[in-house]
Amino acid sequence: MKSLSPEQYTAMANAVRALAMDAVQQANSGHPGAPMGMADMAAALWGRHLRHNPANPLWPDRDRFVLSNGHASMLLYSLLHLTGYELTMDDLKGFRQLHSKTPGHPEVDVTPGVETTTGPLGQGICNAVGMALAEKLLAAEFNRPGYDIINHHTYAFLGDGCMMEGVSHEACALAASWRLNKLIALYDSNGISIDGEVQPWFSENIAERFAAYGWNVIGPVDGHDADEVERAIAQAKTLDNAPNLIICTTRIGHGSPNRAGTAKAHGEPLGAEEIKLTRQSLGWDHEPWTIPQDVYDAWNARAQGGNEEAVWNQQFAAYRQAFPELAAQLQRRLAGELPDDFAASAQAALAATHAKAETIASRKASQNALEWLTGALPELLGGSADLTGSNLTNTSHTPKLRFDESTGSVVTDATGHIGRHINYGVREFGMAAIMNGIALHGGYIPYGGTFLTFSDYSRNALRMAALMKRRVVHVFTHDSIGLGEDGPTHQSVEHAASLRLIPGLDVWRPADTAETLVAWTSALQAKDRPSALLLSRQNLPYAPKASLADIARGGYVLSEPASAAQAVLIATGSELSIALAAQAQLAESGIAARVVSMPCCEAFDRQDAAYRDRVLPVGVPRLAIEAGVTGLWYRYGCARVLGLDRYGESAPAGQLFELFGLTASHLAQATREVLGA
Amino acid sequence: MKSLSPEQYTAMANAVRALAMDAVQQANSGHPGAPMGMADMAAALWGRHLRHNPANPLWPDRDRFVLSNGHASMLLYSLLHLTGYELTMDDLKGFRQLHSKTPGHPEVDVTPGVETTTGPLGQGICNAVGMALAEKLLAAEFNRPGYDIINHHTYAFLGDGCMMEGVSHEACALAASWRLNKLIALYDSNGISIDGEVQPWFSENIAERFAAYGWNVIGPVDGHDADEVERAIAQAKTLDNAPNLIICTTRIGHGSPNRAGTAKAHGEPLGAEEIKLTRQSLGWDHEPWTIPQDVYDAWNARAQGGNEEAVWNQQFAAYRQAFPELAAQLQRRLAGELPDDFAASAQAALAATHAKAETIASRKASQNALEWLTGALPELLGGSADLTGSNLTNTSHTPKLRFDESTGSVVTDATGHIGRHINYGVREFGMAAIMNGIALHGGYIPYGGTFLTFSDYSRNALRMAALMKRRVVHVFTHDSIGLGEDGPTHQSVEHAASLRLIPGLDVWRPADTAETLVAWTSALQAKDRPSALLLSRQNLPYAPKASLADIARGGYVLSEPASAAQAVLIATGSELSIALAAQAQLAESGIAARVVSMPCCEAFDRQDAAYRDRVLPVGVPRLAIEAGVTGLWYRYGCARVLGLDRYGESAPAGQLFELFGLTASHLAQATREVLGA
Repeated sequence: MKSLSPEQYTAMANAVRALAMDAVQQANSGHPGAPMGMADMAAALWGRHLRHNPANPLWPDRDRFVLSNGHASMLLYSLLHLTGYELTMDDLKGFRQLHSKTPGHPEVDVTPGVETTTGPLGQGICNAVGMALAEKLLAAEFNRPGYDIINHHTYAFLGDGCMMEGVSHEACALAASWRLNKLIALYDSNGISIDGEVQPWFSENIAERFAAYGWNVIGPVDGHDADEVERAIAQAKTLDNAPNLIICTTRIGHGSPNRAGTAKAHGEPLGAEEIKLTRQSLGWDHEPWTIPQDVYDAWNARAQGGNEEAVWNQQFAAYRQAFPELAAQLQRRLAGELPDDFAASAQAALAATHAKAETIASRKASQNALEWLTGALPELLGGSADLTGSNLTNTSHTPKLRFDESTGSVVTDATGHIGRHINYGVREFGMAAIMNGIALHGGYIPYGGTFLTFSDYSRNALRMAALMKRRVVHVFTHDSIGLGEDGPTHQSVEHAASLRLIPGLDVWRPADTAETLVAWTSALQAKDRPSALLLSRQNLPYAPKASLADIARGGYVLSEPASAAQAVLIATGSELSIALAAQAQLAESGIAARVVSMPCCEAFDRQDAAYRDRVLPVGVPRLAIEAGVTGLWYRYGCARVLGLDRYGESAPAGQLFELFGLTASHLAQATREVLGA
Repeated sequence: MKSLSPEQYTAMANAVRALAMDAVQQANSGHPGAPMGMADMAAALWGRHLRHNPANPLWPDRDRFVLSNGHASMLLYSLLHLTGYELTMDDLKGFRQLHSKTPGHPEVDVTPGVETTTGPLGQGICNAVGMALAEKLLAAEFNRPGYDIINHHTYAFLGDGCMMEGVSHEACALAASWRLNKLIALYDSNGISIDGEVQPWFSENIAERFAAYGWNVIGPVDGHDADEVERAIAQAKTLDNAPNLIICTTRIGHGSPNRAGTAKAHGEPLGAEEIKLTRQSLGWDHEPWTIPQDVYDAWNARAQGGNEEAVWNQQFAAYRQAFPELAAQLQRRLAGELPDDFAASAQAALAATHAKAETIASRKASQNALEWLTGALPELLGGSADLTGSNLTNTSHTPKLRFDESTGSVVTDATGHIGRHINYGVREFGMAAIMNGIALHGGYIPYGGTFLTFSDYSRNALRMAALMKRRVVHVFTHDSIGLGEDGPTHQSVEHAASLRLIPGLDVWRPADTAETLVAWTSALQAKDRPSALLLSRQNLPYAPKASLADIARGGYVLSEPASAAQAVLIATGSELSIALAAQAQLAESGIAARVVSMPCCEAFDRQDAAYRDRVLPVGVPRLAIEAGVTGLWYRYGCARVLGLDRYGESAPAGQLFELFGLTASHLAQATREVLGA
C-alpha cells in the first residue's frame, strides 16, 4: 500500500475537483458538486485501498467499485484517467458529448473501468450488493485451502438520494442477512439534495437504520480528511461479520467559496468566475486540463495493479494445476460461456419435451426445464421474491442459499455445494437490481421470480439490464386474468405489452412445454440480453407441432389449414389453444385459417423479412388474441385484436375468459367479420 | 368506549377466524392465515378504538383503516359485516366470486367501508401515510378554536411483506419527517412469509429501524392479547410527537392446530378436516356462516358510530354558522367538486395563453398553468421527488410544506396558510402511493413531479390510482432524448407508450402552452381518473391554431393543407413542430399533408367515431412521429412511424434528434415514400 502524505492526498483530491469543474464547465452541463465533495473519500479509497489494474479492467479478482450516485460521473472518469486507465484527457474533454467515452452518467462497456451503469438512484448500491454476493458465493464454490482465487472487496459510494430510495432499503437489508462482510459502502453525507437542505424531508438516523439491518456502521468521519477515511476503510476490512457502512460527512462542492454546501453546486456548471475563485481557494494554480506530473504519479495505479494481477495470475496458474476442472469451470463461467455441449443438450431436451406433450402450467414447464438446466449449468443462481412455491423457480439442484448464523459464511451441503436458490423476500425491485449486480460481476447467471404484475415494481432494473446488455432472466408467473380469484390487483393486463416496449429485453410468453423450454434455452444463450419469461398459473395443453426448429425464431406457423390460408390467427401463451380451437371452428364453416404462435415478438422481429413474410404472408388478413391490452398487436397489421383493455375481475379464471370474450367462438366470429364471411 | 371482557374479545376474534376459514374454504382460494393471526388485533382496534359509522361509510371525519397486507381481505370483510356495514352474510359467501362485493383483495368503491385497494404489498401503508397527511393538513387549514372539525386517526395493519418492500421505507421515513402523530400502524409480526420462516432473509430489527426514522415504537406486545393491544393503541393516541408503530407478535393461522405458525397457513384453504380441528381448538362450536347474536352485538358499531357522527354533524352545523365560507369550501373540496366558475376560468386562461403564443418548455408552460390553478384551487397540493426546480411544480401560491421542529405541527404563514408544495425527497414510488392516499382521503387534489423515466419507479402506484379511479396528477418532465446530456439512463424512450398501456390513465404529451394548459384543466376536471403530464425540458414553439375547442378531445386537426390532404402526419409534444415543418416542406413539393396533434390518445379514443374519422379520414395514409418507441402508433393505422426503438445517447439534444432521424426532412421523405411520390 502506498504511503500518502496529507499534502499528497489534498493535491490528488484537488486534481479530481479541477477536472470535474472544468469538464462540467466545458460541457455546460453536468454535476460538479458531488465529485468535489467526494474527492477526498476517493483519494483515500482509490489512493490506498482499491485493488485494481488499470491496464486490465477485466481482471477477474479486481475490487469492484460502484458509484451509486452516478451523476458524480466526473469523479469516476477523473479517477480512471488519473490512475491510468485508457481514458485520455481528450476523453475527459469530450464529457457528455456524442459517442464520447465519458457520457453524462457512467455506462458499463462504454468506459474502461466502469463496473455498472448508474444514475437512477438507489440501484447502484443494489448492484454492489449483487457483486459482493457473487464474490462471496464464487469464493465458497471455488476457493480451496491455500488458494483464495476469488478474494476481493466491493466498494460503493452512495449519497442521500440513494438512501432515500426504497430499493436501497431492500438491498441493504438483504446484504446484512447475507453477511456480506466484504461490501464496504461509503456514504457521502452532505445534507444537501436538489431541493436543498434535506433535514425537512430526510430526517432519519442513517447510522441507526443500518445498525437495525445488522451492518457495521463506522463514523461519521470527516469526509474531507482522507487519512480518517482511509483508516475507516482499513477498519472495515478487518471486520468479518457484516457489511460495512462508513458515514462520511462532506460538503457538496467542497472548495467552491460561494457554492459549497448549497444545492446550487449540484447540477450546473460553477461558471468561469467561481471556478477561478475555487482554484484560488483550493490553492490549485494549474490551468484547466493540466495535472502536474507528481499528482499523476501519486494517483497512478498501473505498477501496483500490474504487480497485484501478476501475483494473482501466478496463484491462478498453480490453482489450475491443482484443480484443473474447477479452474476450467471458473474460467468458462467468468467468460459467460455455456458448456460446449449445451446446444446439443438443448436440442435433445426439446425433443424429449415434445415427445412427452404434457398438459401443465407453463410455470411448471419452466420448473421442469430448470430441473435440467440447473443440473447442467452450475452457474444458474435462482431465486424468488417470496413466491418460490408459486413461481416454481427452485429445483432439486438448487438448495436454499443460507449463511451460518455465527460466522456468516456460506452454508454448504455435505458435498460442498452452496445453496443456489435465493429467498429474496418481498423485494422485487431489490431482487432485480441485485441480479444485475450478480450478472455484472460474472460467474453466475441470475434468475428470479415474482408475479408478472409486480414487474411494475422492478421495471427500471429490467430497463437497466437491457441498457447494460446483461444476461438476467426474470420468471414472471401468473401472467394474466388466468390467475383468477386474486383479482385485478394481481392480474396482469398491460404488462406483457409494456415489457415488450423496453428496448433490448426479450419477452417470452410461451404456450406450452416445448415453447417454455425454448424460451429458457434462448434466454440463456443470449449472452448480451436480459429476458423475461411470462408464465401461466393455469394448465396449458400441449400444442401439436410439425417442427420444433422455428420456435426459437419467436414466431412460427404452428398449424396450417388444409387449404390456402384466408386468415392468420396470431396468439401467445394461454391463448394459443383458443386460437387452435377457433381454427377448427372456422374449418367447419369452410374458412381456412393459419395459426401462428408468437412466443417472442423480439426474436421474431429479428428474423429476416423473407422469414417474417413466410409466417405472416402479405395480403392475408391477420387477427391476434392475447389476454391483455390490444394496442401493440396492430404493429403486425392486425385487422382485429381480441384482448382486454381494462382491468380484470376477481373470479375463477374460466369465467373471466368467458366474460371478456376470449373464446374460440369469439375469435372465429371476429375472423368471419374480418373476411366478410 | 365499549368495555369488553377477555371472553368477549376472544369470541369476537374467533368469529373473524371462523368467517375467514369458511370463506376461503368455500371459494377454494384465498388467505386464511393472516386474518386468523390478526383477529385479536382487529378486535382491539375495531372493538374499542375505531371511530366510524357503519351506516355512513363516507362520514368525512371517520377514522381511516387501511389493510396494507390486503391478502387478509377476509379480515376486513368480516369486520365490515360484523360491525354493521352493508355487507351481508351472502356477500361473504360470495368471496372471490364474479361481481361480488368481496373480491380477492379489498377494492375501494366495491365494498362499503373499504378505504383503499390493497394487495400489492407496501403500498397500503403509504396510502395510510397520505391519508394521515391529508387529515393533518385539512385540520390545520380548517379547524378553528373550539371547532376541531377534522380530527381523526388513521390506522393501518401491515405485515412482514410490507416491511420488506422498499416503498414502506420511503413512506415511513416521510411520515416521521411530517410528524404524523395520528397515524397508528399495527405491525403483524408473525415471522412467516410465503417462503417460510423469514429470519434468513428478513433479519432487520424493525423497532430500531422505525426508531431511526423517528417513530414512536410500542411493543412488541402479544398480538393475541386484545387487551394488551388495546392498551398499546390507547398509549399511541396519547403521544403527539410522531407516528406510532405497535409491534404485535402473532402466529399466522392462530387457532389452527396443524397450520398455525407455518407458511401453509398463508395462501390456501385449511381444508375441511383442519377447519373442524380449528373450531374445536378455538372452542368455536358454531356452524359455518353462523355468528351468535351476542357476538354480533359485541361487534356492532352502528349505535355508537351513529352517535359519534351525530355529534360531529352538530359540531359541523355550528362551524358552518361561524365560518360559512370555510365550511362551504371544505364541503366542496371533500366532495371533489371544482368551483362553479372553473370551466369559464379555464376557457379564459386558455384564450389568454393562446394570445401570448409563448415559446417555452412545456414544463415551464405547466408551471405557468399551475400559477393560475394553484391560486384558483386551494385544494391543489403539489410536490416533487427532489426535482422541484426541474419539474417546476411550485408556484407563488404553494410555499414549502413544513412542520414545526419542536411541536410537529404544520407551519403556517402570516396569513394562516399552510405550505402546499411537498418535498417528497428522492422517493418516486412513495410519493405516488402517498398521493393515492391523499386523493383517497379527500380534501386535496395531489400532484407531484419527477423525470418521466422514473415513472418506472412509481409505475404500480399509477396503476393503482387508475384501478381505484382517483384523481392524482403526475408531472413527468424531461420527457425524451430532448433532455440531452444526462444520457440514456435518464432519457425516456418507452415511457410515453408504456404509460398509455395502463387502463384508466390519461397520458398527456402537450406540444405547446395551450395544449399544456388544456392537459392540466382536463386532468383536474377528470374526477375519476389519474393523469400523467409528459413535459419537455427544452423550449417548444407555439403551434398556431385556428381553434382551441378541440384540444381537449385529445387529438385534433392542427393544420390543414391548402388542398385536400393526401397524408396525415400525427405528432405529439416536441415533435409537433417537426411535423409542421415537414408539412411545409411537402407543400413546397406539391404534397398536401394534414398535421394532427395528438396530445392525449386516451381522450381521442373516447371521442365518437364520427369525430375520429373527421380527424383521421379513412383512406388517407397516416404517419406518426414521436421521440420514443414506435410500436403503439400502428393502432392508428399508421403506414410509417418515425421514432426511436433503442436507447438514447448522452449528447446535446439537437444532435440527438438529428442522429435518430427525427427531423422534418426525414418525415417529409417518409411521407413521399408512403405516397410513392
